[in-house]
Amino acid sequence: MMTNAPFTRPAPAALAAVTDALAEKFGNRFSVHEAVRAQHAHTLTWGASQPPDAVIFAQDAQEIADIVKLCAAHRVPLIPYGAGTSLEGHVNAPFGGISIDTSLMNRLVAVHAEDLDCVVEPGVTRKALNEQLRDTGLFFPIDPGADASLGGMASTRASGTNAVRYGTMKDNVLALQVVMASGEIIRTARRARKSSAGYDLTRLFVGAEGTLGIVTELTLKLYGIPEAVSAGICPFPSVKAACDAAILTIQSGLPVARVELLDALQVKASNNYSKLDLPVTPLLLVEFHGSDSSVREQAERFGEIAAEFSGGPFNWATKPEERTRLWQARHDSYWAALTLRPGAKAVATDVCVPISRLAECVAQTQRDIEETGIVAPIVGHVGDGNFHVGILVDMDDSADVARTEKFLERLVRRGLAMEGTCTGEHGVGQTKRKYLTEEHSSGTLDAMRAVKGALDPLGIMNPGKIF
Amino acid sequence: MMTNAPFTRPAPAALAAVTDALAEKFGNRFSVHEAVRAQHAHTLTWGASQPPDAVIFAQDAQEIADIVKLCAAHRVPLIPYGAGTSLEGHVNAPFGGISIDTSLMNRLVAVHAEDLDCVVEPGVTRKALNEQLRDTGLFFPIDPGADASLGGMASTRASGTNAVRYGTMKDNVLALQVVMASGEIIRTARRARKSSAGYDLTRLFVGAEGTLGIVTELTLKLYGIPEAVSAGICPFPSVKAACDAAILTIQSGLPVARVELLDALQVKASNNYSKLDLPVTPLLLVEFHGSDSSVREQAERFGEIAAEFSGGPFNWATKPEERTRLWQARHDSYWAALTLRPGAKAVATDVCVPISRLAECVAQTQRDIEETGIVAPIVGHVGDGNFHVGILVDMDDSADVARTEKFLERLVRRGLAMEGTCTGEHGVGQTKRKYLTEEHSSGTLDAMRAVKGALDPLGIMNPGKIF
Repeated sequence: MMTNAPFTRPAPAALAAVTDALAEKFGNRFSVHEAVRAQHAHTLTWGASQPPDAVIFAQDAQEIADIVKLCAAHRVPLIPYGAGTSLEGHVNAPFGGISIDTSLMNRLVAVHAEDLDCVVEPGVTRKALNEQLRDTGLFFPIDPGADASLGGMASTRASGTNAVRYGTMKDNVLALQVVMASGEIIRTARRARKSSAGYDLTRLFVGAEGTLGIVTELTLKLYGIPEAVSAGICPFPSVKAACDAAILTIQSGLPVARVELLDALQVKASNNYSKLDLPVTPLLLVEFHGSDSSVREQAERFGEIAAEFSGGPFNWATKPEERTRLWQARHDSYWAALTLRPGAKAVATDVCVPISRLAECVAQTQRDIEETGIVAPIVGHVGDGNFHVGILVDMDDSADVARTEKFLERLVRRGLAMEGTCTGEHGVGQTKRKYLTEEHSSGTLDAMRAVKGALDPLGIMNPGKIF
Repeated sequence: MMTNAPFTRPAPAALAAVTDALAEKFGNRFSVHEAVRAQHAHTLTWGASQPPDAVIFAQDAQEIADIVKLCAAHRVPLIPYGAGTSLEGHVNAPFGGISIDTSLMNRLVAVHAEDLDCVVEPGVTRKALNEQLRDTGLFFPIDPGADASLGGMASTRASGTNAVRYGTMKDNVLALQVVMASGEIIRTARRARKSSAGYDLTRLFVGAEGTLGIVTELTLKLYGIPEAVSAGICPFPSVKAACDAAILTIQSGLPVARVELLDALQVKASNNYSKLDLPVTPLLLVEFHGSDSSVREQAERFGEIAAEFSGGPFNWATKPEERTRLWQARHDSYWAALTLRPGAKAVATDVCVPISRLAECVAQTQRDIEETGIVAPIVGHVGDGNFHVGILVDMDDSADVARTEKFLERLVRRGLAMEGTCTGEHGVGQTKRKYLTEEHSSGTLDAMRAVKGALDPLGIMNPGKIF
């Protein structure tokens, strides 16, 4: 199979040719200021900050196409930037280059309520989208916690708490507009709900982390806001019992909309941070969507399943305010975790395993956390077999950093040994590249590299990511 | 972008080198008999029959890998063959070559009931799979009508009556094993329910129609057999009323499992063929899955929606035998249609449009059928905006053939003009290649061709299909 062009930092003259032209064309939407560049390398990971050489605040696809053509002529890298909430170094610029900030591309282009879809620019965030949709009775369900941009969510194949019911970004993007490495603007598909007309380019760009092109517009599936929503909390005697209850819930075909695990340590942190008084024991937070009667029925059946694993009592948050508070606490788990070790940095990572291995994987990980002597709460989208560990690390303590690195390696290898994946929803970015070669065979990686080489022969699209 | 190697029929000596070697290696699992070759060009389309030069009945992935390497060395085409039920000439051999019949690869390799997945060889048919799964309480929902092979269903991105609830093959393949054009055997993904680890090769091979590699194993999602299933028939005064009721059903978020349209002509044919006494008027066949009470609730709400569009009375088939008879009649609609014009051939085609345009598209198509003076019943997976027209053509009447060709063009262009796709679930094959260039821009097609060129640089994988 073909090998890709090796990538190196552009020569100063090439870079200057690009930045001079961009400065002239974009005026105050172009910046080489230290602070702006630093902000565009900002990442929630613990890797080194690698700022781009310059930042463009782009306004439309044609502008981005022009920038790509200019950069291609001088072999200068392009790094797409949404909301900067990615976790694996996706927006870093290891070879320098131009960060394409899409935050000004924040228009809701069209809502086709009758077709249950909408068209958005990539800088629209999920919260902004749902606010703008409110009057239509529709919503976009994918919710990774952070108020990420939809372009970024597509590019990292994000999912989150609702995925067990509504799927991931892979399942909810109908079509994309993409600026290719050649500068050509393409559409991957039309607006029909399904198609067998040629290769599935939509799914190829979803999860490609900006390495094959830059997403400039998304057509997304929408859903009717359920008639009834009901959420509740159920304590369990152990993480294993909670996982087993989640597994049986899924296996029983209960259409649960969310089923989230918090381990006791995370509950303690969330109680402190979010001013809650949840029992400090492993918990499942669950939510059901449907009609009044179906939600009630689902809740009853879940309660029965929980009881089989010694879970309960099952407390319902029927009022919207209570529900909001509960999910806000879940979403704030990252910030809550930080309170467990003031001054530490939280390293957020995820793995995903077949659901039958989940309880075992979480339990082994908890033992590992204890034996390693680190502080690391666990939360999980347990309906998908996906869980997150937030390790609190003192970055000034090299022993602590080394210990954490070893722990992360063991965590990923534990997931891989159970037929799982090194990342369920965060993406590979820079940080998990070494695991990609453990997850996939060389033939599989060759196929991915061949696709990369075919669509980005110069290697200018977000180099240093995935591979 | 790169252009692909032009493909031509292999030289006789190259072909002989391949067939001699295969004959020696495979004995009676290799055939050049006229009848066997003709059977492997058999297609339900009306295109010319183009038999392969030889047929291999393969037994495992390694054999296929060896055959691919041999064919690659001599630039001889490979055409994967499942059950031969595809509709757009997918198994024809326009450049000759070797048909890889996978019907002997019919093992259910593993069932992971607790993970709701299974692993199958590509020659397993959907009915055989569900029969083997029966004792597990699980089922595989995708149902294109014909008893297609799962390898073929993946390769054409098939869907069918259940797609409105369970999605298409795109949504239900977790991972694939594929023999690449190099002869290398790869796995596209692991068994976790979701992953963000690299490019989505699974979705790239799903719908690739064997042009990028040969599927040799599939990991599929399974679902619990619903506690309750309820199906019914609802007559409507017009196709438009029936479509509008289907649209509102979807928009209301009713989790209908199937919602199928039969126009009056199809009802007439099905009454004759399947010995039914359905009212000869546009009908919706609907099915609901869930608990006893949720199915009842869904049915009531559907009845209310139907009444809003003057539909009804809504007759329930609560007994499994009645349900089976009803769906068998739906599945036999192709054969039933043939009775409308004895001696004619049925040309089955499909388009898919955004659901808001469906009623309009079907109504215009009905007018076109009438004005053209052809016999062409319509059935549709109307919950997806997808419908089928079965045109009964006298192949010996050149005027009839010409009229039908023009009608097909108008049908596809009508769908495309409504932001739809030239095929919702049949695939492009040979027959719809010309429409692919109307559906997608040249840039989009360039991207597809670049992927094809990267993964199949010699162009030996099912040449003459899609492009």
